[in-house]
Amino acid sequence: MPEIRKEITKGLWTILAPTRGERPFDFSSESGSKTDKEVDPNCPFCPGNESETPSEVSSIRTEKEDETSWMVRVFPNKFPALDSEGSSAVIEGDVFKSMGGLGYHEVLAETPRHDRELVDLSVEELELVIRTYLNRFRDLSEKPKIKYVSIFKNRGRQAGASLEHSHSQIMGTTFLPKMLQQEYDLAESYRNESGSCLYCDVIRAEKREEARVVLENDAFIVICPYGSRFPYETRVLPKRHSSVFSDLSNEERNQLSAALKRTLSALTERLGSFPYNFTFHTAPYGLSGGEPESEMSYHWHLEIMPRITTPAGFEWGTDNFINIVSPEKAAEELRRQVT
Amino acid sequence: MPEIRKEITKGLWTILAPTRGERPFDFSSESGSKTDKEVDPNCPFCPGNESETPSEVSSIRTEKEDETSWMVRVFPNKFPALDSEGSSAVIEGDVFKSMGGLGYHEVLAETPRHDRELVDLSVEELELVIRTYLNRFRDLSEKPKIKYVSIFKNRGRQAGASLEHSHSQIMGTTFLPKMLQQEYDLAESYRNESGSCLYCDVIRAEKREEARVVLENDAFIVICPYGSRFPYETRVLPKRHSSVFSDLSNEERNQLSAALKRTLSALTERLGSFPYNFTFHTAPYGLSGGEPESEMSYHWHLEIMPRITTPAGFEWGTDNFINIVSPEKAAEELRRQVT
Repeated sequence: MPEIRKEITKGLWTILAPTRGERPFDFSSESGSKTDKEVDPNCPFCPGNESETPSEVSSIRTEKEDETSWMVRVFPNKFPALDSEGSSAVIEGDVFKSMGGLGYHEVLAETPRHDRELVDLSVEELELVIRTYLNRFRDLSEKPKIKYVSIFKNRGRQAGASLEHSHSQIMGTTFLPKMLQQEYDLAESYRNESGSCLYCDVIRAEKREEARVVLENDAFIVICPYGSRFPYETRVLPKRHSSVFSDLSNEERNQLSAALKRTLSALTERLGSFPYNFTFHTAPYGLSGGEPESEMSYHWHLEIMPRITTPAGFEWGTDNFINIVSPEKAAEELRRQVT
Repeated sequence: MPEIRKEITKGLWTILAPTRGERPFDFSSESGSKTDKEVDPNCPFCPGNESETPSEVSSIRTEKEDETSWMVRVFPNKFPALDSEGSSAVIEGDVFKSMGGLGYHEVLAETPRHDRELVDLSVEELELVIRTYLNRFRDLSEKPKIKYVSIFKNRGRQAGASLEHSHSQIMGTTFLPKMLQQEYDLAESYRNESGSCLYCDVIRAEKREEARVVLENDAFIVICPYGSRFPYETRVLPKRHSSVFSDLSNEERNQLSAALKRTLSALTERLGSFPYNFTFHTAPYGLSGGEPESEMSYHWHLEIMPRITTPAGFEWGTDNFINIVSPEKAAEELRRQVT
């Protein structure tokens, strides 16, 4: 059974999940390049193998009756970091604090095709993935005790993926992640001091300077952040001030799909088939409550982190970063690849 | 020229160091296992190749006259993340803040032998390494503008090392690292509330519970932390309350060498030849000023982080961790290997 423990000297929660260690790995090569089969009979995420995953929680299908005719499919992680049947009991010692391992950990198969990556999907197919993120974000946010829903993707073995079939993960946690709490606090302080949204001001400044802008469309702007931690780190931000991911309009959902497609394509043109993580950063769904969304200081966005270098002792010992590619160089190279 | 930039949405500094990207890699195999030569003529850190590194800044030698007869040798990093001749000018924009790349980045060759790892050194040889850490810590701490000195080691390619000859790194920075600031703040809050040192209280609790203690000697205790972020994460703490690493007595320096030798040996027995980072966490040298050292709330220590799993989207998107090996299991397995 998982357990959530406080690392009291660093002010963060660690999830202890021994059963995660039992999960299978299927990468056929060290570099993480895939077989070219449309369906891999040994892949638990491929159509026809639905019985190898826990029961589906959500899907988008072309034909309602056929189990294998899904476009996007969500199911609980077979080797979950958190347990939907777990306890939420809190044990408060003087220096040792823990919580039961209650939480949700789902897998989203982004395409039935084993031979496709997220970047290979059409804008229309990507839009189904994003629609499903929104569905799971809302649904898990409304579960009792859940404080935050993390939506993320690990692509490639070097980025921590264990299975090669293109997928994302969704975790609902009973704690607010440390990074989000810090981002909320910084956004709130900034607004208290300046009267404006930190992220809206960053967008204005990036548009003025141009050097770190990769692309934009009507609703989104994509930049390599000024203080980028990783080479080719890329951030996708809504141009309209919006705190919660699920406040996307239908039109904005289409625009996000288009911006993501162009961004992943440019990164792939520049870096080849590259390992990466991406994570949505958002205010919690429930946070808005009665308050008008526009009154909240946070500004949701997507962070894409190519994993082509290895964070080492300096990074793990300081929480600061050494980045060997300037964001101006990264953005300039990516702009050349944007179509 | 390096530059230091504020990541304003996350409250951290990033070092942009494009020349770091030019450094060579010499690992002879993917697993990072080394050649068995005592001296590798192609290795810039081996005796006889002293001219391939920038001029030595410190060393311990058996014979003063012979350039190649060193036991431990420190020199500036040829591909530094920071520049000892750099500027410390601060540029304060509304959302873009930067500092010049002033700082120090040194390499410490821990042994002349290419075929030895840190764990292979005798306690006496390790003591020379620690004596040299202390020398560099004091020396760089006293340089103008330097706010913190990070001492760390990257062992193995998966842990971010680029050269296989056993070495550590020392960086003097014009900013206090984010993780250290947070640790100081948490230790200070804890003392204000409870009247005692957080780390001393953790040591007392760990000794009472026993389950996470790996070993101890007169001056040091080694534990797998209650909220361990990584499998087999291990922490070496002085049992006497002490804030600054350089306040070690000679006897404590010997005891630290012995504790480190036993800890690395136990980890190697359990994990084989494993990639790891370690980092010293200390109050800044200058911080004590006139104040009695015992009055400071922080408690220096060494953190050893085996890199046998890959932090992924959840970790990089939240600053929380999923750990698949409980610290009780890790400590129990390591205790069995301790000699």
